[in-house]
Amino acid sequence: MAITRDVSGPKVHLSNLGAPPEIDSQLPAHPTSNPMQQTASSPQSPGRREFLRRSAMVAGVAVATGAAGLSVARAEKLPVPESNKKMGRPIPETDYGMPIKYEDHVRRRRSDVFVNKQNQSDWSMTPLQHQVGIVTPNGLFFERHHNGVAEIDPEQHRLAIHGLVEKPLLFTMSDLMRYPSVSRFHFLECSGNTLTDWGEAKATTVQQSHGLLSCGQWTGIPLAWLLDEAGVKPEGKWAMLEGADGSGHLRSIPIEKIMDDVLIAYGQNGEMLRAEQGYPLRAIIPGWEGNTNVKWLRRIKVVDAPGHVRGETARYTDPMPDGKWRQFSMDMDCKSVITNPSGGMALQGPGFYEIQGFAWSGKGKITNVDVTVDGGRTWREAKLEEPVLDKCLTRFRYAWNWEGGPAKIASRAVDTTGYVQPTVEELARAREIVGFVQHHNGVFPWAVSESGEVKNAIA
Amino acid sequence: MAITRDVSGPKVHLSNLGAPPEIDSQLPAHPTSNPMQQTASSPQSPGRREFLRRSAMVAGVAVATGAAGLSVARAEKLPVPESNKKMGRPIPETDYGMPIKYEDHVRRRRSDVFVNKQNQSDWSMTPLQHQVGIVTPNGLFFERHHNGVAEIDPEQHRLAIHGLVEKPLLFTMSDLMRYPSVSRFHFLECSGNTLTDWGEAKATTVQQSHGLLSCGQWTGIPLAWLLDEAGVKPEGKWAMLEGADGSGHLRSIPIEKIMDDVLIAYGQNGEMLRAEQGYPLRAIIPGWEGNTNVKWLRRIKVVDAPGHVRGETARYTDPMPDGKWRQFSMDMDCKSVITNPSGGMALQGPGFYEIQGFAWSGKGKITNVDVTVDGGRTWREAKLEEPVLDKCLTRFRYAWNWEGGPAKIASRAVDTTGYVQPTVEELARAREIVGFVQHHNGVFPWAVSESGEVKNAIA
Repeated sequence: MAITRDVSGPKVHLSNLGAPPEIDSQLPAHPTSNPMQQTASSPQSPGRREFLRRSAMVAGVAVATGAAGLSVARAEKLPVPESNKKMGRPIPETDYGMPIKYEDHVRRRRSDVFVNKQNQSDWSMTPLQHQVGIVTPNGLFFERHHNGVAEIDPEQHRLAIHGLVEKPLLFTMSDLMRYPSVSRFHFLECSGNTLTDWGEAKATTVQQSHGLLSCGQWTGIPLAWLLDEAGVKPEGKWAMLEGADGSGHLRSIPIEKIMDDVLIAYGQNGEMLRAEQGYPLRAIIPGWEGNTNVKWLRRIKVVDAPGHVRGETARYTDPMPDGKWRQFSMDMDCKSVITNPSGGMALQGPGFYEIQGFAWSGKGKITNVDVTVDGGRTWREAKLEEPVLDKCLTRFRYAWNWEGGPAKIASRAVDTTGYVQPTVEELARAREIVGFVQHHNGVFPWAVSESGEVKNAIA
Repeated sequence: MAITRDVSGPKVHLSNLGAPPEIDSQLPAHPTSNPMQQTASSPQSPGRREFLRRSAMVAGVAVATGAAGLSVARAEKLPVPESNKKMGRPIPETDYGMPIKYEDHVRRRRSDVFVNKQNQSDWSMTPLQHQVGIVTPNGLFFERHHNGVAEIDPEQHRLAIHGLVEKPLLFTMSDLMRYPSVSRFHFLECSGNTLTDWGEAKATTVQQSHGLLSCGQWTGIPLAWLLDEAGVKPEGKWAMLEGADGSGHLRSIPIEKIMDDVLIAYGQNGEMLRAEQGYPLRAIIPGWEGNTNVKWLRRIKVVDAPGHVRGETARYTDPMPDGKWRQFSMDMDCKSVITNPSGGMALQGPGFYEIQGFAWSGKGKITNVDVTVDGGRTWREAKLEEPVLDKCLTRFRYAWNWEGGPAKIASRAVDTTGYVQPTVEELARAREIVGFVQHHNGVFPWAVSESGEVKNAIA
């Protein structure tokens, strides 16, 4: 087909209708012979070595040149794919799009490992091994419910603010949507994430080990604005947040935290909350354990002391070495995990691999992530990807030249408070690691076998 | 129900199973009488005025106190909602979640205004009036195809790099996934966005007027890395990017831009690209008109001059006042639009409203957005929400006290190059505003009637 150079008006694009163009037919002629019939560069070519050198520079480490394992097929004559020869699927009049069928394996999943007998106090986990970037798609955002997913008509929903306030307030959703709003990126992590998988390597994938973790951009109203309006009395030191779900989920939050950064959120990743995230209204308590971020939020009662409710006593408390239980350990400590390569993957021969993962802290921003590929004997600094945001997932990257032997890889994060993610041994000295371990933020290792198989390597 | 203070072990949460609790039954007693039976504060209360004063401070403008219009229902005894009385929907074994039925109206839509007769060279538009934050959900991301949506098996897909290079290269998707990657937030806008809606106010909503605009976090490989590996010959000055769709979509991109920031992307907003966004591989040409971001990317041919193909001659060119047509006007100039309130909405009486919208520039970051509420006579500075990123949507907010009369509202953005978004009149002096106007970035006004109705106010 000739190149259209006529600018006088639209013409039918014949390649849509007729025979498929040969490989170069739509491209302007140039002096070289058909380059697709040449042989592609071999892995040992200077070009590839140069690429690897640059990749290594980008990642801030030295990779031996010549040891590259990237495979490039021989560039024979490139066939025209079937998709070039036919019209595609038309656009529907109106829709909400879904992923293509080839990505059907990327799903939230209930745990394969920890089967929950109380069927509607349940959770599903995010496939972190498939996540790119820092935003978890809403369709893959982890779930944790104490009594299933409430489905609430926003016209009927009300938020009450009462208790130790000068003026109790009652809001419809329309009232709340009239307020100024803010949008902020924050991770959300269940305090039970990575929970009992210590001492026994049950979780085979990072979805199973760390999938009670997701990250989104939340839109809503700073609760401080609403409490200022209600007028908190001097004796009001905590607020009890209650959900409209079947469990009447209830948590006590200090007024100090609320005045700092708590949001009453109705939006997530550009749209209204999903039902399973508390539609039409939830609390976002940045950096604090998931269950404090009360979903289907209907009441905020200002009180003088925490409620010591079930979720603060029988649950969500941590056993300590002295036999006592720690309550209100609500902020999530600094943590990280390697997602690529991770359990269930297989390396395709020795060569260059980019190790990637997430780091996060409930107390601030991530300042450093170190990576080990020798089971903790040596650590090297990974590169953090911008933007690095407060109480938000941060992606780290580390260029690794796998030489083919057994390896043990892990990451270790540091946050703006100077706190360093502990090893399991360090954590065990401070806490009692038994039963349903909450707040386990230990360094998490993956083992790579000589054949390239990646497996959970916790002791 | 008594408050559980026993930390010895799990107990069944009775409220899940029994009669619904009365309003205060789960909350600890405190000295005040049931506050939900008190009357809520009136709109003229000092608390509300204080809130408005603070909101105004937050937004950086002065709003007269006492003129608030936020409605708060009388706080009678709050009934326990039905959702508190029953178990919710269980979590499926595995799923990819969807929005709740109450948000069914938030959909991509083919244009109600510009019906496209060539049925598979088509587009659908993003409901910007419903978007919160800066990330457009993938299910609502605008579409523009020249021959429908290709659905490509990633196992079969190949990317070829050839032409004026030392070593032509051919990649499988697995090859590409082995490379280091980067993730970056960038807007995508069709050059025809806001296209013929000048001189005649056809579009009734911002979805119709500006909905060929979306924003995502893209994950992929800097194309510079691949071209460095192939080795661009000195005479290689442009690259032709070709899609595997039915139109064999083809565009010429200067090597200089490629070496600056072009990505070969496979990920969008945390997951693999959707089919309609070019799965499994597309170009991301940050800040450049949508159609240069070639989808279903299969070939990159390095050449010595642009191809002057149909998409660069008969289409995607701009008529100029001297009768000539401008080619290769590929970067998107600085632009903004108010999304709330916008066409089709209705203000609920005089009072406080937060004006919100988006600003973006293909040439850098947004530095300022000004808002007018009097048809351009006076402008005041809006607040920009962090993070403000390069070639990315930036949300602006402006606190407005609507006094109830007719008003004409609009926004005007400035980017890091110092460029100021032009008025329609200014643009008309530089360009010929006829037919399918590409690259129309004029200031876009909405009229608010005395009764609060918001309508497209272009002349």
